[in-house]
Amino acid sequence: MIILGIDPGLRTTGFGVIHKQGAKLRYIASGTIKSGEGNLPTRLKVILDGVAEVARIYQPECSAIEQVFVNVNPQSTLLLGQARGAAICALVSANLAVAEYSPTQIKQAVVGTGRAVKSQVQDMVARLLSLPGLPGTDAADALGIAICHAHSRETLTLIASAGIKTTTAGATAPGGPLAGMRMKRGRLVG
Amino acid sequence: MIILGIDPGLRTTGFGVIHKQGAKLRYIASGTIKSGEGNLPTRLKVILDGVAEVARIYQPECSAIEQVFVNVNPQSTLLLGQARGAAICALVSANLAVAEYSPTQIKQAVVGTGRAVKSQVQDMVARLLSLPGLPGTDAADALGIAICHAHSRETLTLIASAGIKTTTAGATAPGGPLAGMRMKRGRLVG
Repeated sequence: MIILGIDPGLRTTGFGVIHKQGAKLRYIASGTIKSGEGNLPTRLKVILDGVAEVARIYQPECSAIEQVFVNVNPQSTLLLGQARGAAICALVSANLAVAEYSPTQIKQAVVGTGRAVKSQVQDMVARLLSLPGLPGTDAADALGIAICHAHSRETLTLIASAGIKTTTAGATAPGGPLAGMRMKRGRLVG
Repeated sequence: MIILGIDPGLRTTGFGVIHKQGAKLRYIASGTIKSGEGNLPTRLKVILDGVAEVARIYQPECSAIEQVFVNVNPQSTLLLGQARGAAICALVSANLAVAEYSPTQIKQAVVGTGRAVKSQVQDMVARLLSLPGLPGTDAADALGIAICHAHSRETLTLIASAGIKTTTAGATAPGGPLAGMRMKRGRLVG
């Protein structure tokens, strides 16, 4: 099962694509979509088109996106909301189910504690996916969201209903080579 | 020139379509898109698909959307932002330029004062477009946004560059019959 994780933001939207087979997770791709310096509608279109392109290229079977929380600055909250709306629109337009996880759930799933800091998420994402180097923070967050979804009950149920054999070997470090694909708008990890 | 106005909201998104020829404004259609009771991604898809359908049916040449302001409740601000993002995504996907106007600009353009209340906007929209009855508040706001855009410098410039003759007859009440078209998801005015 191919899972697409999205870390939404108006300036930078991170994406991470992983493959789950049984308990094994394999890195496929990750990167960022930069919305540039245009007006708001133009920037939202970059996010919409960028996420749509990622979905078209990697053909994920499901997706997950981070729940965002209200900023100290209400205007920033409003802008972030619009960016997240654009990313979700691209996912639902690609007929993908969209799961939502809080930052705490994601850190818990990746690091084992909801209080982890960004560098710990980067470290653990690199270890869990056997990456040769640390991913950037936006891409790491997006990969972390995909990993969180891979461990969720919903995903396990989907896999079971599709007749894919799952193991209960626990959280062994999954292996697998980097796919080495480079996104037009994305920045490849490693 | 056909103008599409959008009044964004998570629960209810209003739309209004008018035709501008010289100083004359003619009502074409208006209504609301209700996002229903699903989860957030599902509701955003209803808004995305609904606005896309309106654009496909009425083939506007430009669009305008209300600027939204931060709510007292930050969570509501975030939800409204996502809904507005979905509406803008539909507009830019239809290759429409998207103008943005503040509520004050819209009230100023429609009623003549930025402090007008909703019922005054409804009244003036009905008078300016010769409607047989008062439109609902969401549809009236959307028609008001379209009227505001029709009066904007940007639109006048577009019309001039397209070689369409404009008059400077001022804000005479424009006439024209209702088109009588009914939206699948929309609620027709009048």
